[in-house]
Amino acid sequence: MSSARIAPRLPKGMRDFLPADMLKREYVFGVVREVFHLYGFEPLQTPVLELKETLYGKYGEDAEKLIYSAEHPGGKEAVAMRYDLTVPLARVVAQYENEIKLPFKRYQLSPVFRAERPQRGRYREFYQCDADIVGIGSMMADAEIISLVVTALRRLGFRQFSVKINNRKLLTAMGQYAGVPDAQLGDLYRSVDKFDKIGAEGVEKELVERGLEAAAVRRMMGLIQSRQPGLANLDVVEKAMGNIGEAEEALGELRQMAAYLEAFGVPEANTAFDFTMVRGLGYYTGPIFETVITEPNLGSVTGGGRYDDLVGLFRKESLPTVGTSLGIERIIDLMDILKLYPADVVGTVVQVMVTVFNEESRPAAMRLAGELRNGGVQTELYMQDKGLGKQFDYANKKGIRLVAIQGPDEIAQGVIKLKRLSDGSETTVQQAQVVDQIRTLLG
Amino acid sequence: MSSARIAPRLPKGMRDFLPADMLKREYVFGVVREVFHLYGFEPLQTPVLELKETLYGKYGEDAEKLIYSAEHPGGKEAVAMRYDLTVPLARVVAQYENEIKLPFKRYQLSPVFRAERPQRGRYREFYQCDADIVGIGSMMADAEIISLVVTALRRLGFRQFSVKINNRKLLTAMGQYAGVPDAQLGDLYRSVDKFDKIGAEGVEKELVERGLEAAAVRRMMGLIQSRQPGLANLDVVEKAMGNIGEAEEALGELRQMAAYLEAFGVPEANTAFDFTMVRGLGYYTGPIFETVITEPNLGSVTGGGRYDDLVGLFRKESLPTVGTSLGIERIIDLMDILKLYPADVVGTVVQVMVTVFNEESRPAAMRLAGELRNGGVQTELYMQDKGLGKQFDYANKKGIRLVAIQGPDEIAQGVIKLKRLSDGSETTVQQAQVVDQIRTLLG
Repeated sequence: MSSARIAPRLPKGMRDFLPADMLKREYVFGVVREVFHLYGFEPLQTPVLELKETLYGKYGEDAEKLIYSAEHPGGKEAVAMRYDLTVPLARVVAQYENEIKLPFKRYQLSPVFRAERPQRGRYREFYQCDADIVGIGSMMADAEIISLVVTALRRLGFRQFSVKINNRKLLTAMGQYAGVPDAQLGDLYRSVDKFDKIGAEGVEKELVERGLEAAAVRRMMGLIQSRQPGLANLDVVEKAMGNIGEAEEALGELRQMAAYLEAFGVPEANTAFDFTMVRGLGYYTGPIFETVITEPNLGSVTGGGRYDDLVGLFRKESLPTVGTSLGIERIIDLMDILKLYPADVVGTVVQVMVTVFNEESRPAAMRLAGELRNGGVQTELYMQDKGLGKQFDYANKKGIRLVAIQGPDEIAQGVIKLKRLSDGSETTVQQAQVVDQIRTLLG
Repeated sequence: MSSARIAPRLPKGMRDFLPADMLKREYVFGVVREVFHLYGFEPLQTPVLELKETLYGKYGEDAEKLIYSAEHPGGKEAVAMRYDLTVPLARVVAQYENEIKLPFKRYQLSPVFRAERPQRGRYREFYQCDADIVGIGSMMADAEIISLVVTALRRLGFRQFSVKINNRKLLTAMGQYAGVPDAQLGDLYRSVDKFDKIGAEGVEKELVERGLEAAAVRRMMGLIQSRQPGLANLDVVEKAMGNIGEAEEALGELRQMAAYLEAFGVPEANTAFDFTMVRGLGYYTGPIFETVITEPNLGSVTGGGRYDDLVGLFRKESLPTVGTSLGIERIIDLMDILKLYPADVVGTVVQVMVTVFNEESRPAAMRLAGELRNGGVQTELYMQDKGLGKQFDYANKKGIRLVAIQGPDEIAQGVIKLKRLSDGSETTVQQAQVVDQIRTLLG
């Protein structure tokens, strides 16, 4: 290893996570993993590099421009870096047909790579966190996904949020209701999808400009903005369009889902039927959901829905699939804004620092560190050759709350002095009690 | 999304981890993370993509051929995929000089990418797991790293293993002792490094062929094969070469380290001074260590040592650094061979499956699933429309040990039947006791 000294820097859009950030990230990852396990979702991992033929032709041309390709000297395969976790899931389900028992409930928590123009909050490597149920057409699965989202957000500490629920079939029916020709349904979705940005008037204007009849558009816009609580909102739509086949089907699914959500114990306050929610042109075929943090209004943190055709890309027959993506990077940031991280997730893993009084007491300090670690206490042993004052300073700066001191007197008496750095308070304990006492002091 | 159907497959050397494998991997990752935290090592994460200028010129030409480069349409930066975790560490230490407090004790557990010819047990994406202490020259740090390795392996369940310890300075001194000119020291290391493969005679033959004096080579080979237990092995070398400055320094470090290992409580049975151990040409400057599983003889699972110059690649002044790499992929495989995975890490996350007796009892089943999850039980709700027998079959095949049944009778009585699938035994419990009873049955 040798080279001229090089300025240490990162490629555009890439991040390092130093320990304080990593501890927050791992806390969030840990909570969501725990919730996935509670719901019986199993972990899956796919490689960063996929064959280009697996990825290309799946995301649309604009997205394809953002895919990183990779190569090595003499390499013959065309490979590219993971762009999302859904296409790899479809590949896995087809590739391991004989190993995988359906339903396949899996989650994956992995980085994906997109060469987007870097900007605040948008990076070229970021984690996605997906949970999907492959092989179940029943609304039980859709309800379970929503229940999972609600539980995960509540366990993370979010309180004021709403899972907005709609159905792609209802959007199609809305098109019929407003007299939109089938060929123009894509335009309709695109316009309604802008509802949050350009408002009802903006959407209405766009649709009329696209040649739809003004009165029909106004009728439809009135309907999709209905905000009755719970099932009453479905009644409003049913009254207006119950005679349209696809609307009936969609409403039936949503009513079924509502009953299941209640059985799962999902609080009514955390869900709402919202007919303005579209979730892009995407690949959804049935119910769709999106969670927004409402108080304060901090936007969307999860999105998902039913997509019954996607798995068929790599397989003779498709499989009904429903899933959700937690916007894990956004959640990590919002938890800072809302101060949802527990106190012990802040700054350092170290619970106690063992000081070294002097050269002679070093072996005793090492023995103590060994004992604390055996006892399950996350322990740093101070290793520089400095006085106690400097050692306390170091611990303070690192955010370590407790230090253990064993000078010649304490060694002679077989005791240990514990000092809490926040208030300087000291406790002296017998060697045998030190682990318990530390637990008490750490609260 | 639309495309012709494509055969689902992976690039060469890449792997998917289906749930059963992932659970084992996550168990191992969890144990080592816990041990890192006990020792006060903090998590770090660097991105998969680094600038080429960061990676190139660090690993040698042969290694450089294995580096994947990456690009995207219109991209202007020359970027490449992470090849190891040590060069990124050196970059991070230089780049965040003001944020990072020394000593910097960090671990990183991340995939790296190497386009090696795929073969059994060798993949192009694999995890590395490194722990390093940057900024401490004292042998306390070296001893702590060895103590960490021993604790991690013991917690994973390994019993018969030995951390072999040597010192690069001692190897240099051996060269002097055998009359090897400085320019030929590299040849000496290379030959001794083959000791395990070609044996003492092979090494001796190579060295003589390289023009070294046969008698001196024989004397040195006798010395490096000394196998006295513990410190006695250092005495043997001291007697022979105590007058060589570098040998004296090396022996002083190793004696100091031995004293610290004892203070940390590292069992003597788990360490041995082994002067045939070289660890390649690498960047090591002082003590080096390598752990081998001895019983059965399963080869090396960790390697590391002191490398005081590397961090200087990105920084005006270097910093003394010592660290280790756990061969985590090898460890994951060996744990299978040695049957070290706990019983509850096998097959599925699901602890209980809630069956659905019939259409009418479905809401009750969902309520029960919700309650179990609230109580911390990892629960799958059966979602297909099949009879109880088929439901038991499904649970059995998935490796789920317990199923919960609530038919019309149980619902009427407010009780739940729990059935253990291994022996078919059934217990009926009150709703309020169900979580406790499940915990008991799961043991």
